[in-house]
Amino acid sequence: MKISVCQSNPIIGDLKGNKEKILEGYKKGINDGADLIVFPELFLCGYPPLDLVEKKEFREKVINTANEIASQTNSIGLLFGSITEDYEDKIGTNVYNSALLCYDGKIQFVQSKTLIPNYDVFDEVRYFESAKEINIHKFGNENLGISICEDIWNDADYWKHRRYPIDPIKTQIANGATLLINISASPYAYGKRKERYQMLSVLTKNDKIPLAYICCVGAQTELIFDGGSMCFNRSGELCLLGKSFQEDYFVFDTNEKYQPVQEVETCFEEEVLNALIMALKDYGAKTGFSKAIIGLSGGIDSALVVYIAERAFGKENVVAVMMPSQFSSDGSVDDSVKLISKLGIKSHKISIQTVFKEVLNVLYPAFNNMPEDLTEENLQSRIRGMYLMALSNKHGYLLCATGNKSELATGYATLYGDMSGALAVIGDIYKTQVYKLAKYINRNGEIIPEAIIEKVPSAELRPNQTDQDSLPPYDLLDRILKMYLEDQKEFNEIVNEIGQPEIVSKVLRMVDMNEFKRKQAPPVLRVSTKAFGYGRRYPIVQRWRK
Amino acid sequence: MKISVCQSNPIIGDLKGNKEKILEGYKKGINDGADLIVFPELFLCGYPPLDLVEKKEFREKVINTANEIASQTNSIGLLFGSITEDYEDKIGTNVYNSALLCYDGKIQFVQSKTLIPNYDVFDEVRYFESAKEINIHKFGNENLGISICEDIWNDADYWKHRRYPIDPIKTQIANGATLLINISASPYAYGKRKERYQMLSVLTKNDKIPLAYICCVGAQTELIFDGGSMCFNRSGELCLLGKSFQEDYFVFDTNEKYQPVQEVETCFEEEVLNALIMALKDYGAKTGFSKAIIGLSGGIDSALVVYIAERAFGKENVVAVMMPSQFSSDGSVDDSVKLISKLGIKSHKISIQTVFKEVLNVLYPAFNNMPEDLTEENLQSRIRGMYLMALSNKHGYLLCATGNKSELATGYATLYGDMSGALAVIGDIYKTQVYKLAKYINRNGEIIPEAIIEKVPSAELRPNQTDQDSLPPYDLLDRILKMYLEDQKEFNEIVNEIGQPEIVSKVLRMVDMNEFKRKQAPPVLRVSTKAFGYGRRYPIVQRWRK
Repeated sequence: MKISVCQSNPIIGDLKGNKEKILEGYKKGINDGADLIVFPELFLCGYPPLDLVEKKEFREKVINTANEIASQTNSIGLLFGSITEDYEDKIGTNVYNSALLCYDGKIQFVQSKTLIPNYDVFDEVRYFESAKEINIHKFGNENLGISICEDIWNDADYWKHRRYPIDPIKTQIANGATLLINISASPYAYGKRKERYQMLSVLTKNDKIPLAYICCVGAQTELIFDGGSMCFNRSGELCLLGKSFQEDYFVFDTNEKYQPVQEVETCFEEEVLNALIMALKDYGAKTGFSKAIIGLSGGIDSALVVYIAERAFGKENVVAVMMPSQFSSDGSVDDSVKLISKLGIKSHKISIQTVFKEVLNVLYPAFNNMPEDLTEENLQSRIRGMYLMALSNKHGYLLCATGNKSELATGYATLYGDMSGALAVIGDIYKTQVYKLAKYINRNGEIIPEAIIEKVPSAELRPNQTDQDSLPPYDLLDRILKMYLEDQKEFNEIVNEIGQPEIVSKVLRMVDMNEFKRKQAPPVLRVSTKAFGYGRRYPIVQRWRK
Repeated sequence: MKISVCQSNPIIGDLKGNKEKILEGYKKGINDGADLIVFPELFLCGYPPLDLVEKKEFREKVINTANEIASQTNSIGLLFGSITEDYEDKIGTNVYNSALLCYDGKIQFVQSKTLIPNYDVFDEVRYFESAKEINIHKFGNENLGISICEDIWNDADYWKHRRYPIDPIKTQIANGATLLINISASPYAYGKRKERYQMLSVLTKNDKIPLAYICCVGAQTELIFDGGSMCFNRSGELCLLGKSFQEDYFVFDTNEKYQPVQEVETCFEEEVLNALIMALKDYGAKTGFSKAIIGLSGGIDSALVVYIAERAFGKENVVAVMMPSQFSSDGSVDDSVKLISKLGIKSHKISIQTVFKEVLNVLYPAFNNMPEDLTEENLQSRIRGMYLMALSNKHGYLLCATGNKSELATGYATLYGDMSGALAVIGDIYKTQVYKLAKYINRNGEIIPEAIIEKVPSAELRPNQTDQDSLPPYDLLDRILKMYLEDQKEFNEIVNEIGQPEIVSKVLRMVDMNEFKRKQAPPVLRVSTKAFGYGRRYPIVQRWRK
C-alpha cells in the first residue's frame, strides 16, 4: 500500500483553512499514486482545541466540515483526525477524538481514540470519551489498524509502568491488522523523538507489522509539535522520517525496500534552537505579528532571544531596545551594540534614568523613609517593561520575554517588569543551557559577543550586584531544578544524590513560593518534559515544605 | 447515631496544621457524646492539592500522618478525607481520593471516590483512580454508606444528563446502607447551595435514608468553599445546615426530630459579598498578608473592592491610592475622598502626571511621530500599576486588582496596568452585578457615594471617554456574556434569543481574542458556574469565529 504522509501545520479553530490543507494533500497524494492520504490527530479542528470542544456549535461545524471533505473523495482513501459525537448516548460527554477514513464520497469508517491522556499538558478526559470499540478496517489489500496518538503509547513490551490496563494496538493485531496507522499530535520535548523511535521500533519488530506514524508540526502557543513522522517496516526498521520543525509530505510504499534511517535527533542545541525559532515564528504567523521587540540588557538571556527572534522574523523585523540605568555596566551597552550590528537588526537606546528618578520622587512621601530594598530594583525592571509594552502597542511589535527557566523557577524575575511579553521564549531553558545554546550559535564564528557569554551574570539593578548574591551557582541550581521539576524527585531523593540539604531546601522553597509569579507569566515555549505553564499545576497558596 | 460535623478550613499541604484540626475536632466530638466525627474531602492535605499529589514524598507524608491520626482514636469513629495509594497495582496512578474511617487506633475502613470529576475546575483524573470497590461498613447500629463529593452527584432521579454510567450511592443503598455520609469539597458558585439542597432532598426522600453531607469552607486561591454542610432525615427534610462562609461545628443525631430548615441561600448580593470577603481574608491569612492596597479611581469597581478589602482586613489595614491624571474628572478625587472618609481607611494621593509626561518625552523619538492611540491610555494605567506594585513591595501590602468580569471578558483592561495584583477580587462579577452589590451595600445608608454609582462609566484615560465608546451598553453586554460564558450558548443560540447579530458577533470576538490577556491575569475569585481562570481553558491562538 502507498501512503501519503501529510505532516502539516493546522490552525486551531480554522476549519476552512485546515479543510483546504486536507483537500490539497488529498489531491497531491492522488497525483502521486497513493492509495491512502493521511493527516494527523484532530487536524481538522487543530490540536489542542481545549474548551472549544465544549461548544455545540463548534462541534457541529467540525462534523459538517468533515462530511463536506468526505463528499469530495473518490476511491482513494483519506484519513484525518476530527471530533465526532454520539447523539444517542445520554451519559458522559459523548464526544470522541476520532480518525475518519473517507472514500467513495463518504466517511466509511471511524476509529475513535481509546486511551485518553490526562496528565502533564493533556486534559483529554475533560472532553473525550474512550472509544466504545476497537476495530480494524479492510481497505485494498490491507487490514488497517488505525489508532490515535496515546493508543500506541501503552505497549507492555516497552513500558515498565503502564498508564492503562488495555492495549488497543495489540487488540488490532490480534484481530488481524496487517498495517498499523497512527495519527498523532505528540508535543515536543528534547529526547522525545528518540523515545518515539525506540518504542515504535520495538513494537513493529516484535509484532512483525509495518506502521505509518503521522505527526503534527507547528506550534500552538506554548506547545511545539516537531513533526518527525515515522514509517517502519515489519522488521522495526525506520524507513522514512519526516522533517523536523517544518511541514513535510512524502509517500511510504509498504512494498518498497528502504535504507533504514539511523539518526532521528540531532544535538540538544540544534534541536532546541530550531524548536524555539519555529514556535516564535508560528505564533507570529498565526496571530498576525510580523515584527518582534526585545529588551536587550547586555546579558546572555536577552542576547539569545534576540538571536532567535532574528532567525524567526528576519533582521528587518526585529527591534532591540537598550534601556540602561546608573547601575548598567559600560560593557552592557557596548556589547549590545556589537550584537545589534552583528545581526543587522534595528535598535533604540532609551534611558530609564529620568523616569526612575521622577517615580522615586513622586513616591517618596508614600515610601515613608523606608530603606532601599527590592522595590527600587523592581521599579527599574517595571519601567523597562512599560517602555517595551508602549513600543509594542504603538508599532504592533510582538514583545518577547527574556527570562530563562532558572529565573522563572526561583522567582528571580520581576512581575510586570522583565516578565512582560506575549511569549516566554526561553522560559523552558535553564541558565546553563542558555550558555550552551550561545556557544553553539557561535560555533562557526562569533555572533553573540564573547564578552556577553563571559561576563558574570547580573541583573544590574544595584551596584556590583551578581545573580549569585541571591542564587546558588547556576551549575548546582540547575541540577537541583532539573531533578525537582523534570525528574519529579523530592527533597530527600535530591539530597541523597547531591547532598547540600540547606541549598536544596532553599531552592525547592523558592520554586514553590513563586507560583504566584508564574501564574501571571506569559506562555512558556515548551521544550522539556516539564515546562512551567499548562502542564504543571501547582497550588499558589500552600504550606508543603514550609 | 450522633455525628459531629466538622466544617473546617484546611490549608493545602499543611499536614501538621490540618492534623491538629482533625484531632481537636475529634476531642470536641467525644466530649459532645458523638459516635462519629467527620471532616471533609481530602481535608488532611487540603483540597485541591493539584500536582502535589504527583510527589511521592508528599503522598507518603500524608499517609503517615493519616496513620498517626488513626493511632490516636478510641472506639469513637473518626472519618476524614485523605490520599491513599495502592502499592501493589502497577497500572495507572494507583492513587485514590479516599475517606478513612478510623477507630480503635487504626484505619478500619477505606472507601475511595468512585466518580472522578474532570470538568470545569476539576482535574481529578489527572491524579486519582476510581475506587475498585464500593462497600458499606457496619459501625455501631448503622451500615454506613460513605461516599465522596461527586459520588453523590449522579442520581438518575435528579439529573437529566448524567456524567457517569454508575451510581455508587444506589449501590450502597442496595447493599443495605442505613445511613449515608458524604464528605465534600464542592466549590462555591451562587445558586449551588440551593441545587445541592434540592438534589440531596430528592435523594434522601426517594431512598428513605438519612444523610450527613459534610462540606469544606474557606478559600484556596481562586476557589471558594462556602460550607453549608447539610443533614437530612429519611423524609428528605433538611434538619441542620452549617453556616455559610465560616467554620462551623454541630452534632447531628439521626434519632432526633428537627424543625426542617427552609432557607439555604440568601440573596445574590449578600451571598456573593460574603464569599468575596471571606476569600480575600483567607488568602491574606494563608499567605501572611494582613494589609491590602487598592488603586481608587473614583469609579464603582475600585470602590466596591475597597469596601470588600475593608470588610476583610479592617479599616486600619487598607490603603487606597488615588492617582489622578489630566483626564480625571474633578468628581473622581472628591468621590474617592468621601468613600475613604466613610470607610475610615488610609489613603495616598499620587499624581501620575509628571511621570507620564517624562515617559512620553523619553519615548518620543521611538514613537516616530505616530498619532496618539491606545498606547498613551495603557501607559497611564501601567504607571498606576507600577506605583501600586512599588507600594505593595515596599510595605508588604496585598495588591487587589479591581477589574470586573465584563472588562476581563472584553479585554477592556490593561495588562500590567489595572490588571496588576495578587487577586482579581471582582473578576467574576459582571458590571451590572457590581452596581447591584454597590446598591446593596448602601441599603441602610450611603457607604459608597451615590455619585460614584450614578456617574457614567469611564476609564478616564482620554478626554470625555466613556466605556460605551468601545463597548455595548452594559445591560446588553452582560446578557450576552452570561449566555456565552456561563450558559455555554453559542452565536446562533444567542442571536436567536436576543437578535443583534452584529453586536453579539463583536462581543464574542472580543472575548475570544483577549485570551492572551487573561492568561496573565491574577487569579479570579470564583462565584459563578464559569469564571475566568482555572476552570475555563481556551486556546490563546485560534481562529474559530474569525
